[in-house]
Order: sequence, then structure tokens, then C-alpha cells
Amino acid sequence: MSFLLYANEISKRVENFIYEVVKGEPKTLYESALHYIKAGGKRIRPLITVLSARICGGSENIAIPGAAAVEILHTFTLVHDDIIDRDELRRGVPTVHKIWGTDMAIISGDLLFAYAYRCLIKSLNYGIPSDRVVKALETLTEAAIIVAEGQALDMLLPTIDSVDSTRYIEMIRKKTASLFASSAVIGAVLAGGDKEVIEKLRESMINAGIAFQIRDDILGLVGDEKILGKPVYSDIREGKMTILVIHTLNKINEDGRKRLRSILGNRNASLHELSEAAEIIKSSGAIEYAENLAEQYANRAIEISRSVVSEDREALDMFREVVEFMVKRNY
Amino acid sequence: MSFLLYANEISKRVENFIYEVVKGEPKTLYESALHYIKAGGKRIRPLITVLSARICGGSENIAIPGAAAVEILHTFTLVHDDIIDRDELRRGVPTVHKIWGTDMAIISGDLLFAYAYRCLIKSLNYGIPSDRVVKALETLTEAAIIVAEGQALDMLLPTIDSVDSTRYIEMIRKKTASLFASSAVIGAVLAGGDKEVIEKLRESMINAGIAFQIRDDILGLVGDEKILGKPVYSDIREGKMTILVIHTLNKINEDGRKRLRSILGNRNASLHELSEAAEIIKSSGAIEYAENLAEQYANRAIEISRSVVSEDREALDMFREVVEFMVKRNY
Repeated sequence: MSFLLYANEISKRVENFIYEVVKGEPKTLYESALHYIKAGGKRIRPLITVLSARICGGSENIAIPGAAAVEILHTFTLVHDDIIDRDELRRGVPTVHKIWGTDMAIISGDLLFAYAYRCLIKSLNYGIPSDRVVKALETLTEAAIIVAEGQALDMLLPTIDSVDSTRYIEMIRKKTASLFASSAVIGAVLAGGDKEVIEKLRESMINAGIAFQIRDDILGLVGDEKILGKPVYSDIREGKMTILVIHTLNKINEDGRKRLRSILGNRNASLHELSEAAEIIKSSGAIEYAENLAEQYANRAIEISRSVVSEDREALDMFREVVEFMVKRNY
Repeated sequence: MSFLLYANEISKRVENFIYEVVKGEPKTLYESALHYIKAGGKRIRPLITVLSARICGGSENIAIPGAAAVEILHTFTLVHDDIIDRDELRRGVPTVHKIWGTDMAIISGDLLFAYAYRCLIKSLNYGIPSDRVVKALETLTEAAIIVAEGQALDMLLPTIDSVDSTRYIEMIRKKTASLFASSAVIGAVLAGGDKEVIEKLRESMINAGIAFQIRDDILGLVGDEKILGKPVYSDIREGKMTILVIHTLNKINEDGRKRLRSILGNRNASLHELSEAAEIIKSSGAIEYAENLAEQYANRAIEISRSVVSEDREALDMFREVVEFMVKRNY
């Protein structure tokens, strides 16, 4: 089966599972909680969970609750992130807090967080023994902790005087890459995978996740608003310390630095000022630098994924295609 | 051992466990997450967990991770609740969002949520078998879902035209009583308790939790600010549909209703207006009504707790003392 067809099929199964599990009252709460799930999304993380389970000798079926769990955990972080970043658009629809207000969005995210656990615990109904389920729950918990630490780092970076790329990589490793890695580990653990294989899947995904986030930063500056489903330049308006900004600030002269800093994080900046900042960044060579950095992580991710051995050749091939997709994404 | 001495001892053990487990970087995030734990608190929920475990034949030791989990889950809900209610004072200290800002407070709460799971999973190190740990995790998850539903209901009640006491009881059963009940169930499940005993502990705590919350509403109107550690009248300023307000609105004439509604939820209301609203409520007989309602739930809670049988007489006595404490609290 082709990679995209399979991705689509898993996406449908995971969605159905989510709609089956995530329901209740009051209606407003559940509507807001399911808003992003209904709006679509690439569903890369659940695909990683399913493929990792298959690579470790499990069936696709047993990984569906875990796949739903990682997608829901991801969605929860989006809901709270959008409040923090004051984003108004996500997946082509208004953000949760924009429609239902910040208070409901906070609770919505919390509800999703809890449902991620409920989904994963349902693995028990698929014949997975308790000790594996607990291990998977431990992995989900670790991911949630690390993502929160990453989000806090992301918030704190702009308050630090001089930020270097090491610090940035540390931040995106926590904020973005860790959940990709955990998505793989959860699938592999549920299937009772071999320790060495699990470690390779994890390591491959850490690297792919870092490349993914660097590309996300680049797309935030040069991407197409309609394809992305969110406004460009929002990183600049929010004053995010992306790798592009970090590289630029460390590269340009004092005047340029002052000008760029005066626009970064200014929520009232005009479109003219935003594109001026974008120009400063582009002409500093930051995009080439970031492309190059992403490629290093991408190569490492691909290399590790190639070293994984499994009897399920099809799953392995598709896992590698996911890695390629993540590191080369244009949207 | 006296009830209060024991409560104090458990509180210390749970705190030490929490400080041992909840640590990491960035510092700001962990400081804000531990802010309310450090500020004190009654620690009723962890005490319920420990006593329930003992009632079911478990040792105090094996219940400490579960006890820490319920206290942390409770703390997480406080952090997010305070953002939503715009509260500025809690346990005699400024609220988390007041010190670190709303964005950090959102992440702080999320981090605590994850750590509640990490603590509970650590029960494995205390010799609890995986299947019991998963059951306890299921209970924690159910509590988190129900609490979120209760918080959403709490937010939505003021938007409903006519609210009766049934709806209010449903709301506080979810928002407040469910976590008390789950605190008991988690302890009992970890100890491998008998189904019938677990059900009684749960049911007793549901009733005690409802009585507890009704008393909380009353104290919010007539309590002492210094003892409570939070401002009186804040429920009125926030427009909360407490049982007092619901009873008053259903009891008084149209003019009074209009006047009360004009003050409720008005964040700029003067102290004079707030005490005027308090007077309207008091003179409607709402406090007597609420006291009476609380007593009914209290009696039921005490009655059920008396029907529980256990070989650990001391734990059983103390559990009943907790119930009495909860339903008769003056702070």
C-alpha cells in the first residue's frame, strides 16, 4: 500500500476512535475540545505510533488507542499554545480561545490532556498486558513533562540576553521533538518491542523532530499562508526566538540588531515593519544557515531509521517515508 | 495517634515525596508549579488516600505516591481555576498567574497535571502490581475529566436563565466532590480493596465533598478573609452561581433580582455594592437554606462512613474524623 493511502487510513481509524471515546457534557466543552481534531491535521504522530508498533511485531489494531493518545496530547498542547501565542488561526479555522474565550480554552486543553490518558489506558481492551500499558503511560507522562518544559523555555528565551543555537536546539528538542519520539516509543512499547529497536526509533524521531521544527521556523517566514493555515510573520510579531532570529541577531551589526529587536514581539507592528524584519533576517543568510542545520538533523534521522531491522518490511519502509516527509516538508 | 497529629505526619511525607519527584528545569517553571504546595494547604485529599488504603488492608507507605498524585492534581486545578476566576490571593499568597503571568501559569498547571501521573506511576516502586496501578491511573483520569466538566459547568451556569439547586449540586459533584471520591478510590484500589468497601468510601466522599463545597460557598460570604487566605465577596464579583445566589434569585422579587444581577459578575463593583449584594443574599434566608442542605449531605456522608468495616480500627476512626472535619469546616 502506498504511504499516503495508508496514512489516510490510519488517520480515519484514529479519528473514529477519538470520536468514540471523547464525548460528554457540557456540549460547549466537548465542541471546543474537538475543534482542532475536526479541522483536520497531518496526523503524523499517530502514524508514527502505528508504524512503530508494526516494526516491533505488533498489529496495527493494538496501536490505535496509543495513536489516538498521542494525537490528543498534541492537540491539547496546540490549544494552550495558541492562547499563549495569541494565535488566531490554526488549520485554517479560528483558534479555540478565539471562538470560546481563553477560560474555556484552558479547560478544553485540560480535558484533552486527561482524554489522552483515557485513550491509552483503553489499550487494555486490545489485549495489551498491564505492565506494557503502564510503561506506555510512563512514556506519555514523560513527553507531557518535557513538552511543558520546552514551552516554558520557548517563553523564556526572548528574556535571555544572548541566545545561541545550542539553547535553541535544546528548546525544540523538548517542545517538539520529544512528542514525536514518544509517539514512536509508545507504539513500540505496546507491541513489546526490543529495547535496542525502541532506542533507534526514538533517536531517529528526536532528530527528525528537530529538523521538522527548524523547517517550521523557516516556513513561518517564507511559507504560504493558505497552505500553512496560519499567518506568516506571526513568529516575528510574537517575538519568538526562532533559529532564524537567533542567527540574525548574532550576525548583524548593532544598528540592525536594534532595529530588529524593536519590531520583534511588538504586537502592534505594521505589515510594513514585519516585512522589514523579515528582510533583515533573510539578508543575514539565516535561511541558508537554518536549511543547512535542518539537513544535518535530517540526515542523522534518515541514517538511524535505515539501521532499524524488522520483519515487517512494509512498515519499515513507511516509517522511513514518514521521516523523509517530516524533514522535507513544505507545509 | 490523634487525628491532627497523623494528618500532619502524612502531609509532611507527601510533601517530601512531591519535592523529591517534582524537579527540573527551567527553574521559573518549577518554582511557579510548586508555589501553592509550598504555601501550605489542608492536604485533606492525600490523607483520604492514605486512610482509604489502610482501611483496605494496605500500609500507609504504599499509598504515598497516590496521595501525592491527588494533591498535585488538586493543585493543578487551583492554578488554572485562579486564572479563570481572576483570583489574586490563595493560601495567603499571591496567585501563580499574579506572580508569573497567565502564560506561565497555564504551563505550570499542565506540568503539575503530568506530574500527578508520574507520582502515581511510582507506586510500582512500592510493590504495587501493574494491574492495580493501571486501575488507579484510570481513576485519576476519570477524576480529571469530571473535574474539567465541572469547571466548564461552573463557567456556564451564569449564562443559563434559571438555575435550580439540582443543577448546582450536579456541578459541585463534578467540580469538587469527584476528586475527594477519587482520592479515596485510588488509595483503596492501590491496596487491593474489596469492591463493596471501595464503593462505600467513594459514596461517603461524594456526599462529604458536596457538603464541603456548600460550606465553601457559605464561607465565601460570611468567612474571615485572613483565615480563608482569600478575599470574601470574590464569588459575587465573579458572578459565580453559588447555592446562595441561586436560592436568592429564585426567592426574591423582580426588583431585588434585577439589583442583585446588576452587581453579580461586575468586576468593577465597589465594596459598598458587594456588601449590598451580600445583604440581599443574607436576608433572603439563603444561608440557612444552604446550611440545611449541607447538613443533609453531611449526615449521609457520616452515615455511609459508619457502615464501612475494616480491621484497621484506627484508620477507620480517622477516616470518619476527616468526614466530620470536611462537613463542619469553618475555614
